[in-house]
Amino acid sequence: MTSPSMTVALDAMGGDLGLDAVIPAALRVLNRHNNIHLILVGNQEQINARLQQPEYKAFLDFQGHYEVQPASQEVAMDESPATALRSKKDSSMRVAINLVKDGRADACVSAGNTGALMATARFVLKTLPGIDRPAICTHLPSMTGHTHMLDLGANIDSSADHLFQFAVMGSILSEAIDGTVKPRVGLLNIGEEEMKGNEVVKSAAALLSESRLNYIGFVEGDDVYKGTADVVVCDGFVGNVSLKTGEGVAKMIAHFIRAEFSRNIFTKLAALVAMPVLNSFKKRIDPRRYNGASLLGLRGTVIKSHGSADALSFATAIEVAIQVAQQSVPDRISQQLQKTLVEKQAV
Amino acid sequence: MTSPSMTVALDAMGGDLGLDAVIPAALRVLNRHNNIHLILVGNQEQINARLQQPEYKAFLDFQGHYEVQPASQEVAMDESPATALRSKKDSSMRVAINLVKDGRADACVSAGNTGALMATARFVLKTLPGIDRPAICTHLPSMTGHTHMLDLGANIDSSADHLFQFAVMGSILSEAIDGTVKPRVGLLNIGEEEMKGNEVVKSAAALLSESRLNYIGFVEGDDVYKGTADVVVCDGFVGNVSLKTGEGVAKMIAHFIRAEFSRNIFTKLAALVAMPVLNSFKKRIDPRRYNGASLLGLRGTVIKSHGSADALSFATAIEVAIQVAQQSVPDRISQQLQKTLVEKQAV
Repeated sequence: MTSPSMTVALDAMGGDLGLDAVIPAALRVLNRHNNIHLILVGNQEQINARLQQPEYKAFLDFQGHYEVQPASQEVAMDESPATALRSKKDSSMRVAINLVKDGRADACVSAGNTGALMATARFVLKTLPGIDRPAICTHLPSMTGHTHMLDLGANIDSSADHLFQFAVMGSILSEAIDGTVKPRVGLLNIGEEEMKGNEVVKSAAALLSESRLNYIGFVEGDDVYKGTADVVVCDGFVGNVSLKTGEGVAKMIAHFIRAEFSRNIFTKLAALVAMPVLNSFKKRIDPRRYNGASLLGLRGTVIKSHGSADALSFATAIEVAIQVAQQSVPDRISQQLQKTLVEKQAV
Repeated sequence: MTSPSMTVALDAMGGDLGLDAVIPAALRVLNRHNNIHLILVGNQEQINARLQQPEYKAFLDFQGHYEVQPASQEVAMDESPATALRSKKDSSMRVAINLVKDGRADACVSAGNTGALMATARFVLKTLPGIDRPAICTHLPSMTGHTHMLDLGANIDSSADHLFQFAVMGSILSEAIDGTVKPRVGLLNIGEEEMKGNEVVKSAAALLSESRLNYIGFVEGDDVYKGTADVVVCDGFVGNVSLKTGEGVAKMIAHFIRAEFSRNIFTKLAALVAMPVLNSFKKRIDPRRYNGASLLGLRGTVIKSHGSADALSFATAIEVAIQVAQQSVPDRISQQLQKTLVEKQAV
């Protein structure tokens, strides 16, 4: 099966590494796909200078598969969303999103600051009918595969209706990316018993129980990594804390393992034997393999890369963008919500 | 310095293992301290039968250092707090708490169900003046030592005042247990920038900034394990999700490490060399060494052990109880709050 040709706009200036990550990532993706067109958005001079460097001469093989779209401004990593929206109308981030809006790109990817990206994407693209607030969704490694989790920080104080919308969006993303049939949707709570949890979570549970979604009930923080559900739904404050907690624990464990193996000459020798095995384990949960969070609920595909992403990591985010766009996730969300609304009216 | 003599009441029937954990844990503690008196609360017949088993004959050496207090009922692990409170007035859990109330014990420890323990402790002991809601606080391993975190699930939808009270209580617990001078208190949020976070967190930040506490500002989920703060304060819903997420990630990593080392004959040989090193790392973050959560804000010391605690783990919880009681944590919380109230009135 040949996938349809897709165009992805890349915010070439965003993230901590900017061009150092985006240009080699673009080359990686062009090498892997023959039906992908990339638009590198940003400072034209800098991008062209980069493309002429000997290490990137392979771009010559891909003439016609990429182009440069000039943008005169950049959004800083610590810039407030409001400032970015008001005074950076020609930023690489904004221009990349405009390309999606104008239909010139099927998706865009940025490693720029999350708040500015969400605000700009929402302003330019608008939300889908039936969606009050877009959400950020990423996939995380689990014992049995991976789990899609949302919202991860775009929304705080989410209502039951918002959580329901997140569930619909996450379910469709899981179907689209993993091909999961009837993804299992869990609602994050602090106990499996029905009596626990706050009012919002309880009301959301009621909505989900009546829906067409494959709702499996409440899940707890550890279920995200157990693989109990394909989609875990929560408020953005809670989701962001959970995501960061997971990162923190993984980093602490890596730190302690390194410390133990470098303790003395014997443990250093043990490390020589153990490291190849530990490295293949590390690969399995390498955060770079899990880069690329989807901003769901917008009229277009916008993918957020981690700000510190390197080339491999940014390339993963582009792959996510390709998949989400190929599977027409925004359209499918819209259709699913339409169905839900019709059903509600029928009741 | 000889510590004062202390009496600790143990709910001998609580938790998944009941007597199988509590009796050997008691022996461990008696072996380590010569000034601790233990009261084993529960089914007298079963306890005595256990104490007469050959493996526990060492109890003979500690005559006068322990006693058995009969209790005819047990609270089930899945029993609702309301039922436990209403119909289990002679449960091992309730009788242990009564001993604290009556001054016969300085502290009590239970591995029974958290909801019932909190409800019963609150009903029997009452909260300290100035405390609206008791909170659950535990210490978690961090890269640099450990972090006390609260609330972990006793309270959902906490107000700014509640978060402030949690901060006072956590700060005193950190001082008491670790001897930390001016413990660094962080408020859990989803971004370090002041503009982020919900209204409750922002108001709590304002209260903390004006207080005598060593408030260091907002922290994020990963800071718990980095060791950025000595005390991390949050709402119970968020705290519980964070705690469980951490457990989930640690379990997933252990699972993957085991899987990689048992992949084939070569990795199994590597495991022989690596395991002693990995085991000494595992010891460092062994959850059994971090057992014993404090129910803070009550007029008495109540320690919650993990439900699945084994003997080593339950003994750790008893050690926490001894420390908290020796340091008069409830009195110190009360005094500190009194000071805060007087200051507020003076303003």
